[in-house]
Amino acid sequence: MTRLFNDPAAFADEALEGFTAAHRRWVRPVTGGVVRATATPAGQVAVVIGGGSGHYPAFSGLVGRGLAHGAAVGNVFASPSARQIHSVATAAHVGGGVLLMYGNYAGDVLHFGQAAERLAADGIEARTFAVADDISSAGPEESAKRRGIAGDLPVFKAAAAAAEQGLPLEEVLRVAERAGARTRSFGIAFSGCTLPGADHPLFTVPAARMAVGLGIHGEPGIGEEALPTADEAARLLVETLLKELPEDVADPAGQRAAVILNGLGSVKYEELFVVYRRVAALLGDAGVEIVDPEVGELVTSFDMAGISLTLTWLDDRLEELWRAPADTPAYRKGALDAAEPDLDRAPVTAAAQDTAVPAAPVVPAASDASRRAAGTVLAALDAVARVVDAHADELGRIDAVAGDGDHGIGMRRGSTAAHWAAADAHGLGAGAGTVLTRAADAWADKAGGTSGALWGTILRSLGTALGDREAPDAARVAEGVTEASAAVRQLGGAEVGDKTMVDVLVPFADALAAATGEGLPLADAWDRAATTATAAAAGTADLLPRRGRARPHAEKSLGTPDAGAHSLALITRAVHGALLDHH
Amino acid sequence: MTRLFNDPAAFADEALEGFTAAHRRWVRPVTGGVVRATATPAGQVAVVIGGGSGHYPAFSGLVGRGLAHGAAVGNVFASPSARQIHSVATAAHVGGGVLLMYGNYAGDVLHFGQAAERLAADGIEARTFAVADDISSAGPEESAKRRGIAGDLPVFKAAAAAAEQGLPLEEVLRVAERAGARTRSFGIAFSGCTLPGADHPLFTVPAARMAVGLGIHGEPGIGEEALPTADEAARLLVETLLKELPEDVADPAGQRAAVILNGLGSVKYEELFVVYRRVAALLGDAGVEIVDPEVGELVTSFDMAGISLTLTWLDDRLEELWRAPADTPAYRKGALDAAEPDLDRAPVTAAAQDTAVPAAPVVPAASDASRRAAGTVLAALDAVARVVDAHADELGRIDAVAGDGDHGIGMRRGSTAAHWAAADAHGLGAGAGTVLTRAADAWADKAGGTSGALWGTILRSLGTALGDREAPDAARVAEGVTEASAAVRQLGGAEVGDKTMVDVLVPFADALAAATGEGLPLADAWDRAATTATAAAAGTADLLPRRGRARPHAEKSLGTPDAGAHSLALITRAVHGALLDHH
Repeated sequence: MTRLFNDPAAFADEALEGFTAAHRRWVRPVTGGVVRATATPAGQVAVVIGGGSGHYPAFSGLVGRGLAHGAAVGNVFASPSARQIHSVATAAHVGGGVLLMYGNYAGDVLHFGQAAERLAADGIEARTFAVADDISSAGPEESAKRRGIAGDLPVFKAAAAAAEQGLPLEEVLRVAERAGARTRSFGIAFSGCTLPGADHPLFTVPAARMAVGLGIHGEPGIGEEALPTADEAARLLVETLLKELPEDVADPAGQRAAVILNGLGSVKYEELFVVYRRVAALLGDAGVEIVDPEVGELVTSFDMAGISLTLTWLDDRLEELWRAPADTPAYRKGALDAAEPDLDRAPVTAAAQDTAVPAAPVVPAASDASRRAAGTVLAALDAVARVVDAHADELGRIDAVAGDGDHGIGMRRGSTAAHWAAADAHGLGAGAGTVLTRAADAWADKAGGTSGALWGTILRSLGTALGDREAPDAARVAEGVTEASAAVRQLGGAEVGDKTMVDVLVPFADALAAATGEGLPLADAWDRAATTATAAAAGTADLLPRRGRARPHAEKSLGTPDAGAHSLALITRAVHGALLDHH
Repeated sequence: MTRLFNDPAAFADEALEGFTAAHRRWVRPVTGGVVRATATPAGQVAVVIGGGSGHYPAFSGLVGRGLAHGAAVGNVFASPSARQIHSVATAAHVGGGVLLMYGNYAGDVLHFGQAAERLAADGIEARTFAVADDISSAGPEESAKRRGIAGDLPVFKAAAAAAEQGLPLEEVLRVAERAGARTRSFGIAFSGCTLPGADHPLFTVPAARMAVGLGIHGEPGIGEEALPTADEAARLLVETLLKELPEDVADPAGQRAAVILNGLGSVKYEELFVVYRRVAALLGDAGVEIVDPEVGELVTSFDMAGISLTLTWLDDRLEELWRAPADTPAYRKGALDAAEPDLDRAPVTAAAQDTAVPAAPVVPAASDASRRAAGTVLAALDAVARVVDAHADELGRIDAVAGDGDHGIGMRRGSTAAHWAAADAHGLGAGAGTVLTRAADAWADKAGGTSGALWGTILRSLGTALGDREAPDAARVAEGVTEASAAVRQLGGAEVGDKTMVDVLVPFADALAAATGEGLPLADAWDRAATTATAAAAGTADLLPRRGRARPHAEKSLGTPDAGAHSLALITRAVHGALLDHH
């Protein structure tokens, strides 16, 4: 379990601060993460990686020559926000464009995708690549849905080494795609980690048992078996990976492979070596030549007990890139010349280490009517933060049925940050629109993950619809909710019936539009729509359990509603209370 | 807990095999451990380190250019035997002499000291240095008794970097002494590890509590406190270390220090960074300039949950050595030229990876009388192995009161190996003397630790006294026991009254000599002496508990006899049974 922390809410920021303090030779802090402290030749493609905290050395520990140019660092087990990624990528960019690389999780896909759009809007060419190496998380026919685990490292490294050689962005992306297509991982687990401040582990595995294929955040696996011997574990890992070769590899015999035996935190080095002994023998028996193996902790999950085996099937080009030197805080390989400090960049100041997003000191001009409406918005956001706080544990439990159990944690962080940001903006005299957009940015930044991106979008859509000039009437609010509904559908790629929050948001928006169209006052119309939302949330609970697929929010145990749908219904009800009070 | 293993007895050997398989670029296996796979200039001092398994990257992970030339690898938590150390040092030696370096534990001190003597007898100049950095294990006035923990790394590195610069052996030793005198560590712990095959942890700490100063094998600490925040933990570590500066440092302000924040296994990287953030700030407040800090797992204890802080107070010379490059499996720093393989050495063969001690295929000629006596010796060693096996758990529990609780494990490994080796020798027609000396080597090799060295000495003394020619009569056996008693006193540096096995061995030898002097047959004389031994063992139990000092076997809870004394008494009784049967 995680024992040493101060304020759990500050854990990720404080860890990043300590990490940068210890590794100034390699990295310097920027808003949202870190970039190399060493010079990069102008025009080189910048490889910017990222993901949640709690997986060190992924992701900040992999920044340095020969590997990533920067890392966006999210909260514990939560994607960095698009704003963080945009900030890190902008700092890392040296004129050659940016390749954003991350593990294939819904929150990361959303935020890195948004960041790429913002970079493009700035005139910085950007591409994205999601590593999807965990073969237990979806079948071969759905390999694009697979999660990313320790295969992150060889795929990041291949692309970064290609960038280091001066290749243009499209070529670097091709290398990433080739390395990704030839990288497979498979893992087993024995116990879960307990996050900072939590009072129970994310998941448990019965004593003397192991979970097969379980994800590094506790996502469902594909089975449970008796605890194996080290040799049996090695055989399971090797045989499973040899069953699914890349399309262009017919027979393992004669192939070369980069091999990573990764420990997730509490399976220690000597155990890994005992397992590796047999892994190497079995691969040798299969005729596979092992190239530069890595045995250690390369992608962790706090002190989770588990291991995974990764194979990257090498061709001459990928082997050259795998063997290339690298010098990062946590991964060093081969001989590099002495590093040049990055003298062109601004010196690191204490202030630059503060990764928090500073509040803008001024707000756009607003009408008195909009300012008064902003008071109602603030009260509503206060009510949202309170209801989320009161239900955070319940939301986590619901999410844990099919996802990683962090929905409550993320929603609490996001809604609290949104309320604070709204209060700041309100205090500066902001209108309703600005209060909502400030809240939207804060929610997305601080919550991270999928829910952070979606709720940021909801609040931003509403804020844009309300603006800072006119007094928002019921029709305009309903219009804003309809726009939010459309934006969430587009961003999340989900439709009604997929058992996600969309199943609640769409009927809620429709009911609100219908009620305001009938001329009902906002509070009454909202009341009717909230009742619709609650019924719709219950309707997301009728799916049979479907374990072993990386489809967060699309798989539920019988009787448990989708966590995102449930929290949205709770929030619509809480907002109604705030509307009544401010009627 | 340790989950992945095959035969627990083979764990350390299999881990070493997997380690070398994964790191052929840096190391090659030799009997007893590993040496560099890269070339070392002729005449360079060879720095050979070592210790028990379970502490990776200590010790094998620290072999490579800029750091150790070889590592002797003992069994789990047990010192390598003198024979292992001698083998590794001989392989690592390139004409400049050998500096043997290790943590300050009784078993390591014994075995490395014996190895140095054997090297000297071979004409290889050898010196020893024990790192004693853990300030919680003894007060400043007894600093030579302190245990070695994560301070191993900077002290090893200073000496190795000096060797790399071409300094002669005495100068390298001076550097080790200077680095050792300026290196201090202090640690806290939250839970203990469970060794491979064990069914309970070596020690436990109550929930929400921490043990202060507890050793990495569970040796007693100096107190227990409430679980701190990360900032409180940082303050405790820094303030404690700043209270005991080296003699030649008056004020920390203006000093430079190498800083290591070490995780013992389950306190993971992000937690370490959160703690380091405050450590760096507090040292900065004290005016200390931090040089090349290391935050990570550098000396572990399987998955023990704990951390330690190490400061090495640098002068210009030590700073140069700390900053020097290194390239090892687990510790890489700075820029080195591409490595040259060590082409002068024999190629690595599969057979060379077998670290087990092969049985010599022939035995010296022996008289029929001595061969018959060898049958009695074999029966006695069988009885020893059986009684130790039956009491191993009890011996562990007794040892855990003041030591690291592994006495039973080590005695079981040693007595079993001794019996097998004796059976092999007996089967080849060996006399009593050779059967005993083969058993002695096997016991010391396989048990490791203090008890391995002492029992190896006992059996070797007896074997030398008995020889392979004459039928050993009662007087000769008594003479051999007296010689064994003298050798153990000399090797262990203990006298009667120190509450060690010497308290039993000396009166046993005296009683046996007296009884045989009276003309009693051996079995009867042995019976009387064994009764004396049992009484003497009970007499080691009268000491009040004295926690917080690194004096294994000299501190007991009221009523618990010394584990070594107790096992000796059990063994004398068991041997009597064998003597009766073979009368």
